[in-house]
Amino acid sequence: MSAAAEFGPVVPPDAEVAAAARARQDRLTKPRGALGRLEELSVWAASCQGVCPPRQFERARVVVFAGDHGVAAAGVSAYPPEVTAQMVANIDAGGAAINVLAGVAGAGVRVVDIAVDAEAPLTQEIGAYKVRRGSGNAAVEDALSQDEVVAAVGAGRRIADEEVDAGADLLIAGDMGIGNTTPATTLVAAVTGSEPVVAVGRGTGIDDGGWMRKTTVVRDALYRARRDIADPVALLRICGGADLAAMAGFCAQAAVRRTPLLLDGLVVTAAALIAERLAPGARQWWQAGHRSTEPAHALALRELELEPIVDLQMRLGEGTGAVVALPIVRAAVATLASMATFDEAAVSERASG
Amino acid sequence: MSAAAEFGPVVPPDAEVAAAARARQDRLTKPRGALGRLEELSVWAASCQGVCPPRQFERARVVVFAGDHGVAAAGVSAYPPEVTAQMVANIDAGGAAINVLAGVAGAGVRVVDIAVDAEAPLTQEIGAYKVRRGSGNAAVEDALSQDEVVAAVGAGRRIADEEVDAGADLLIAGDMGIGNTTPATTLVAAVTGSEPVVAVGRGTGIDDGGWMRKTTVVRDALYRARRDIADPVALLRICGGADLAAMAGFCAQAAVRRTPLLLDGLVVTAAALIAERLAPGARQWWQAGHRSTEPAHALALRELELEPIVDLQMRLGEGTGAVVALPIVRAAVATLASMATFDEAAVSERASG
Repeated sequence: MSAAAEFGPVVPPDAEVAAAARARQDRLTKPRGALGRLEELSVWAASCQGVCPPRQFERARVVVFAGDHGVAAAGVSAYPPEVTAQMVANIDAGGAAINVLAGVAGAGVRVVDIAVDAEAPLTQEIGAYKVRRGSGNAAVEDALSQDEVVAAVGAGRRIADEEVDAGADLLIAGDMGIGNTTPATTLVAAVTGSEPVVAVGRGTGIDDGGWMRKTTVVRDALYRARRDIADPVALLRICGGADLAAMAGFCAQAAVRRTPLLLDGLVVTAAALIAERLAPGARQWWQAGHRSTEPAHALALRELELEPIVDLQMRLGEGTGAVVALPIVRAAVATLASMATFDEAAVSERASG
Repeated sequence: MSAAAEFGPVVPPDAEVAAAARARQDRLTKPRGALGRLEELSVWAASCQGVCPPRQFERARVVVFAGDHGVAAAGVSAYPPEVTAQMVANIDAGGAAINVLAGVAGAGVRVVDIAVDAEAPLTQEIGAYKVRRGSGNAAVEDALSQDEVVAAVGAGRRIADEEVDAGADLLIAGDMGIGNTTPATTLVAAVTGSEPVVAVGRGTGIDDGGWMRKTTVVRDALYRARRDIADPVALLRICGGADLAAMAGFCAQAAVRRTPLLLDGLVVTAAALIAERLAPGARQWWQAGHRSTEPAHALALRELELEPIVDLQMRLGEGTGAVVALPIVRAAVATLASMATFDEAAVSERASG
């Protein structure tokens, strides 16, 4: 593995704090376990923060990684490639789903152009970490050069550092890029050893012909990567893309910086599969925000042993599925931080058991 | 059916506004259908409000209906009956799960003592609609007299009126009462024609012996109600309870007042089954907030043809499952109200299909 894509060690969330959090949940005025998943999430939040009761997440930040993909020319998407740049502008202007959903959830949004296929980035700030114009069509060529992989992973790492240094207490990665579910599906199929026909979904809503073209592209890309399945950096180079590499760096660095992160749908979770290989143990710092309708997303979640918080049949990307789950994470934290205990409220405990 | 438990006609949510809302969702800058359940919820909200785009829900109100049940003496709960009154005090003091979860979700909380088995209500306001001290043990006697049913249903109706008149734009019903899943399960089994062994769950966490006692009670109560299965008022009298009757009146009147309502878990949804019989069509004004772990809850939801928004393995009651889903309803409203359309954002539409 390239030295430039190596990450510092991942320290697991604090097990002692987790035990204290579990014990406190059991003293709160409700039947033991009655808050279900909220109890688990509150324990996770406390163990990530290293403190019980946990603090409420006040500075959640969404970073949307934008990039185009040469595969879009192969007719794998229902939308033309120029939509990527148009949607970067829409996100910058505040009109996209992620802006609106992050707004009601109380999270900040940043969009970065990692590999949009446009003459110039929308703004200097958005393009500060741009690696190239579009990633290669992995069916016929490497998506990236070795140097580009290193640059893209490093970009994601630095963006995570910037956000954490600026005070972010919870990170969300999002994606924007016409055709990006094709390389994401390829990465998931490669890492999980899945057949393309099992992994390939409808993305933004392709018809049967589009699905067949997409499946062919994934199959060809997997064939090109067949000797490098065990090497996460090589996978990003051969059949990933600059945006996916940056997301992988971002997810890995969040864990290195001990900052909890909510995964979004297929594209982010594909990058997270790679991140877990770049920085083993990183997944302990992540929760799966939602389950998308993409079949490869379910495969990736199973590999990471993560259970989504919500299942709302969403398939939009941008970080929208994660940000919709954010209020549930906050609700979990609030129970552990603010509910009365049996002693405090003078409520009788269970008669038996 | 008693005249006193009759409700005004339920006007369905506005179908023309629903059509306009669907058309607007399809013009927003995202693939058609990509927001999944959020799109349906946004259409529902708009059609309930009669306006598209919909207004954000700003005054959501949770009403927790507290009551004791004679069945608690039969060992059907893991907690002693005095916990009901203690928890009313805990809710009044702001220390219960519903206070904390409503707080982070931005909803107000009101607790009402409909049938708590205590000398006096905690406060005059909380006890303003009190019907009696505890409902009867339906295994051996009617839970209520006919007059008490009428009083309890009327109490729920008047509480809904008060909340709507005070400006509530979304209502949530919650429950608090040791033993209350036993009459709730009985009502669900009666209305859906289910066997007790299929319907009875573990409530707050009873062991196998408790489960067998609970199942026996449900079976005996169902036998007592066998000739009155088709009469919702008789069911409340024979095998319901004052808190359940009040919740039924509340859910029905919300629909009469054209005010959307989120259902919580088993107890509220059992009352909603009765409400749908008291005021046919009321269910169009409801969404199911969550799926609880109680088997009878799934039976009730199926009967109402409602699909829960979240499934977090919660089983607490108090309205907690509904209030955890509230931010998702708000997220849905926000997309329809605030996202840019393809035209506004100058984003290209799909190339095909």
